[in-house]
Parts: sequence; C-alpha cells; structure tokens
Amino acid sequence: MVLLSPSRRLRRTPFSDGVEAAGVKAYTIYNHMLLPTVFESVEEDYRHLKSAVQLWDVSVERQVELRGPDAGRLMQMLTPRDLRGMLPGQCYYVPIVDETGGMLNDPVAIKLAEDRWWISIADSDLLFWVKGLAYGFRLDVLVDEPDVSPLAVQGPKADDLMARVFGDQVRDIRFFRFNMLEFQGRSMAVARSGYSRQGGFEIYVEGSDLGMPLWKALMEAGRDLDVRAGCPNGIERVEGGLLSYGNDMTARNTPHECGLGKFCNTQTAIGCVGRDALLRVAQEGPIRQVRAIEIFGDRVPTCDRRWPLMVDGKHVGNVTSAAWSPDFNTNVAIGIVRMTHWDEGTDLDVVTPAGVQAANVWETFWL
Amino acid sequence: MVLLSPSRRLRRTPFSDGVEAAGVKAYTIYNHMLLPTVFESVEEDYRHLKSAVQLWDVSVERQVELRGPDAGRLMQMLTPRDLRGMLPGQCYYVPIVDETGGMLNDPVAIKLAEDRWWISIADSDLLFWVKGLAYGFRLDVLVDEPDVSPLAVQGPKADDLMARVFGDQVRDIRFFRFNMLEFQGRSMAVARSGYSRQGGFEIYVEGSDLGMPLWKALMEAGRDLDVRAGCPNGIERVEGGLLSYGNDMTARNTPHECGLGKFCNTQTAIGCVGRDALLRVAQEGPIRQVRAIEIFGDRVPTCDRRWPLMVDGKHVGNVTSAAWSPDFNTNVAIGIVRMTHWDEGTDLDVVTPAGVQAANVWETFWL
Repeated sequence: MVLLSPSRRLRRTPFSDGVEAAGVKAYTIYNHMLLPTVFESVEEDYRHLKSAVQLWDVSVERQVELRGPDAGRLMQMLTPRDLRGMLPGQCYYVPIVDETGGMLNDPVAIKLAEDRWWISIADSDLLFWVKGLAYGFRLDVLVDEPDVSPLAVQGPKADDLMARVFGDQVRDIRFFRFNMLEFQGRSMAVARSGYSRQGGFEIYVEGSDLGMPLWKALMEAGRDLDVRAGCPNGIERVEGGLLSYGNDMTARNTPHECGLGKFCNTQTAIGCVGRDALLRVAQEGPIRQVRAIEIFGDRVPTCDRRWPLMVDGKHVGNVTSAAWSPDFNTNVAIGIVRMTHWDEGTDLDVVTPAGVQAANVWETFWL
Repeated sequence: MVLLSPSRRLRRTPFSDGVEAAGVKAYTIYNHMLLPTVFESVEEDYRHLKSAVQLWDVSVERQVELRGPDAGRLMQMLTPRDLRGMLPGQCYYVPIVDETGGMLNDPVAIKLAEDRWWISIADSDLLFWVKGLAYGFRLDVLVDEPDVSPLAVQGPKADDLMARVFGDQVRDIRFFRFNMLEFQGRSMAVARSGYSRQGGFEIYVEGSDLGMPLWKALMEAGRDLDVRAGCPNGIERVEGGLLSYGNDMTARNTPHECGLGKFCNTQTAIGCVGRDALLRVAQEGPIRQVRAIEIFGDRVPTCDRRWPLMVDGKHVGNVTSAAWSPDFNTNVAIGIVRMTHWDEGTDLDVVTPAGVQAANVWETFWL
C-alpha cells in the first residue's frame, strides 16, 4: 500500500477522533471523505466482525435531503423502483439512473415523511444530479446535504449493544425499517441496515457535535461484548455479494447488468427519467451481468483495476472485486460476465497483474 | 501519514505505470482517481519544480465534454463569466455556480469549436450537474466524460522539453491558449497552462493508449534537462495563491468570496443559472474573502481541517491550506477572513491542532 496525503479536501468526520484513537491503519476516500479500511488487519477485522460487534464510521454515506411538496415526485424521477407503496419509516435500496439508464449511484432512500426524504449515497456527487433536475424542472423542493453522519453498528452482537444504549425497542426494528430514537435528548433515525451480512444497525447521527458522545457511549456500553472500531470489510462484502459503486458498477452499467432488475419496476415507475431507456432491457434482459466468481489457486493480489475474464482468447467479462476468503478457503470475487459465459459452472481464465488463474462462475454468493 | 487502500474505485490513470516506476511515495484521491502528491519529498519536489521541468500525471482533471448546437448556451448557464468573446483555441478559468451562487467547481473551459467544449474539472462530479441541467432544459447537447487525460509539463525548462517532442511551435502558444499538435500521428490539444507558477503546458491526451508512449517520449527527450515525475506541489501552490476546490472553497462560498469576482460578469452573463443570486454580492461585495496569511513561528502541522482565525476571542475566519515555505522562510497559508479583519497587516491568531500561533494578513501571495 502507498501513503495518503491528508488535506482539508479529504474531509474528516464527526467520529475521526475515535477512529484514530482506535488505531486505524488505512483509509480509502469516499465522497471526498475519510473511510477507514483496516484496523488490526483485514483478516482479523473480518473474524471479529463475524463473531462480535463493531462500530463503523460510515459518515461517507452522505445524505441528500429532499424537502418540500415535490420531494416525492423528484425521488421517483431518480429511480426505476416504484415508490408508491413506500411508507414513512421505510428504507428502500434504490438504483439511481440517468436518462440512458446508466447507474449514477446505488443508495438507500429513507422516507422520513411524505415531503421529506434522505438519500444515503454511495461514492458519487449525487447531490449535483438531483439539484440539476430540481432546477431544470422548476420543482418545489429544497435539495441539500444536511449535517448527518451515519454510524453503523454491525455484527452478531449488534442488537445487544444497541439495546444497552437505545433500549430494548431497537430489537423490534425490522429489516430496512427505522425508528426515531433518543440519545442525550436528541432524536435520530435508527435503521436495521448496513453494509455487511452480519446484521446490525445504522444510526443517522444528526449534528456533528453528537458524534463522539455517541461513539464513546457505545464503546463504553459494549466493553464486555468486545466491541471494537471496524469498517466495511473487503472480504466479507465480496463473500456476501454486496456490490460497491465505482468498483463493481459504474455509469456504463444498467441496474439489470448489476443484478438489480428486481429493484426496477419499469412498467409502473412513472416519472423516472431513465424509464424509456430501461424498457427494452427490462423486457429482453441484459447481455452481461454481475456474477459470483471463484478464483482457484494462489491468493490473488489486491484488485485495483479490472481483471479480464478470458475463454479461448475471447474477452468475456471482468473481475471487479476479489479477496482471499479464510472461511471458504478460496478466492471469492465479483465480476460482470457476458451472457454466453455466465451460466453456473462455466470455466474462465482471469488475468491478474500476477498472472493467469483458473476461475469458475457460481450461481450465488457465499452467504 | 496513513496508508491508502487501493481498489478499482480509486481509478488508475494512463500514466500510472510511469508514476509507479518513478517511485511515487504518496497519493491523494481526486475525482475518484489517483493523484500523486510526493516523489522525493514535498520540499525536494518543490526545489526541482522551480529549477528544472517535471511531468505531472493530472489525469484527475477529467473532462466534461459538451457537444451539439446548445453546447455554448449550456456552457454559459454554468458560469457567471461572460463567454461571448471567447474564441476556439482559448482556455478560460470559469467559476461554476449553482442557482444560489455557490461554487460547484472551478475548472478551465476549453473551447474546441463553436459547438464543442471541454471542461477540465476540479474535484467534484460536475458531470452530474451539467447532465441534470441539459436534461431538465431539454437542450440539444451531448454531455459525457471522454477518454482524455491531461499530462502537465511544468517548470522553467518546460518550453525546451516540449519543443523537443512537439517542435518549436509550442514556444508560440500564448498563455491560456492551445494549439492542436501531433504526437505519433494523433492530434492533441496542447495548452500553455497548469497548476503552478513556474510556467508550462497541459497536454490533453485523447486516448489512454497514448499515455505511456508520450510519458516515455518526454522522459527520454528531457534526460539532460533533469526531467522528473512530479505533481502539484503543496508548498508552491500556496505561495502562489492557487486555490484548491474542496480545500480553499466549497459550495458554501460564492466566487466573490474566493477572490474570483473578476471572473464574474454578472451584468452580461445572460443565462447563467446563478446570476440572480450573485447580482447583489457583485454590487456590494462579499463579507468575507480569501486572503494570503503568514503564520509566524514554528513549522505548522499538515492542514487537514479548517484552522480557526481568532481576534480577541472572536472567530473571524479560517485557514484552509498552509505549508512551510523554504524560499520565504515562513509559513504561507490561504484563508478566508471576515471583512472586519481582512485588511493587509491585520494581526490574527490561528488555532492549529498543535497550538495557537500568531498570523498576519498579506495583501498578495508570495509570487
């Protein structure tokens, strides 16, 4: 790994002091902000995530707030997912597409009220697209980035830890729902969600001043649960098939290519700006799609660029994320593969900077 | 400094192989892409930049291309600078503002033809704002990110080096003008511009395949000129008062606050979406503005967050970039200061994580 030069442009978060005190070893940059990637080591963090509970500074999931009479209309313009049945208190995973059906982001939308939404974004300045549409269509809506920084509590002991700070009511929060709960007399949205398959919550901390008090309260309350600082884990998320915008998909991909067709209600999502472009792909299906890929042999190097997938000298796809999995004792990977070679069991060659390794298409991820 | 975890999301560039071979020591992330920050050391790089010539991989200056009959109209919607007199072959520094007059980016616009522009962007996804406006106003224009990666040649020997590869015609290119010149039979825009005060060029390399051949040709041709890999220098750019979007200004600032009022023709830039919002500030002037700040005493730490500027316990501004300058034997800094305390010679206290240091407002930067 190389060094990262700090600057104000790479924004610190309300939890940065806690993250540093916990001995963060490496970062990535996400939405112009620091996102921790390693504390002990990626493998030790992975073991701990699967057995205990971690606090994740995911402030980088910045919020785009829509507020006003046209908030709901604007939200539906952004996504091909039909939002008509969505209630306040629900979170929806919403592919966001441009007028060509290309993915601009893959956030979670939080419906706070009929006229107030947050979009908890992946790594692109979605605010600019939303503001551009709101202005161009003269919508009656305020679009802004509020002072909200999510803190994730992830791992099998997340319910126990959260109950100690927020009360037993957290146990009743259903998946992708949120309740408004109090901490130090201030109300915040607490959702059962997060970027791991180990279960847990995301706390939408409104007000930077509350960041460190909440961090410390959770650390203190979870001592005997072995709570530690953690972060989205590069092994666990590939095992679980959690896609990453910028890694596994870009604006060149449609949601259908990303395996997100189930979140596209192209017939009924009236008003979505990408609807026309997606109608045909919704009918016929994509010609390439995300797949779980096992890579045999040696531990693969760090996947810092696309690795071509080859069959008989033909380029049939790319691996976009990969990691050695201790639990499955193999290299797990995410890739996009052409229809001709995407069936379960298809043998492929993957070309990494370290050489060529045999690979195989899996039907599902390693859940 | 901490470590940076590589991933595909932090995009490599067409010159990354050359940058690595030259021994890059640290990066920052800029427009989701790797931007080198240190080769020998920031101070040695600075000395060399001021005395010889360097190749800078500034691929992170991604281009937003506007093409079609409404390209010019859209370009004028983006900026309060009057573009009516701009000719093909010219480059303009153009503040980009939203409907509230807040800075979204501070790029250089390149006019390739009446109906074709590139916007060479600072660190924000300006593409999203431009696409949103184009779609919302149903403009007849294509908006895209082409495969163009700028390579900068900076330093006092830049003319000599460039002449060896592109011919003596490069010497005739005027400041902020470009010519279309050939390399290996392919035409590329070569502009006299760049993010230093040492003079030089930016080559808009169209086609990633040409990246390493051009890098190698320039390295080879400049051996006796002591050409080296370099990068925008954190000392030299502060001495020279070159602002950095995300460091020295954000969407909360107007161009006038950033000292960019001279690039705002608010009366005549008809069509600019931020025009109404900027009319009053253009008349009355801003209440806070960018200033050169000298910080006395010890070497300041790395400026990774805003440092408050205080007078008698009152918060009157913030330092946003700072560095120890070997040539001026003091700490040079950029800050934004309230009108009440922005006059030349005003004494201030700056609060850094290392303590409080005395500071002073300067009339100009250290040019």
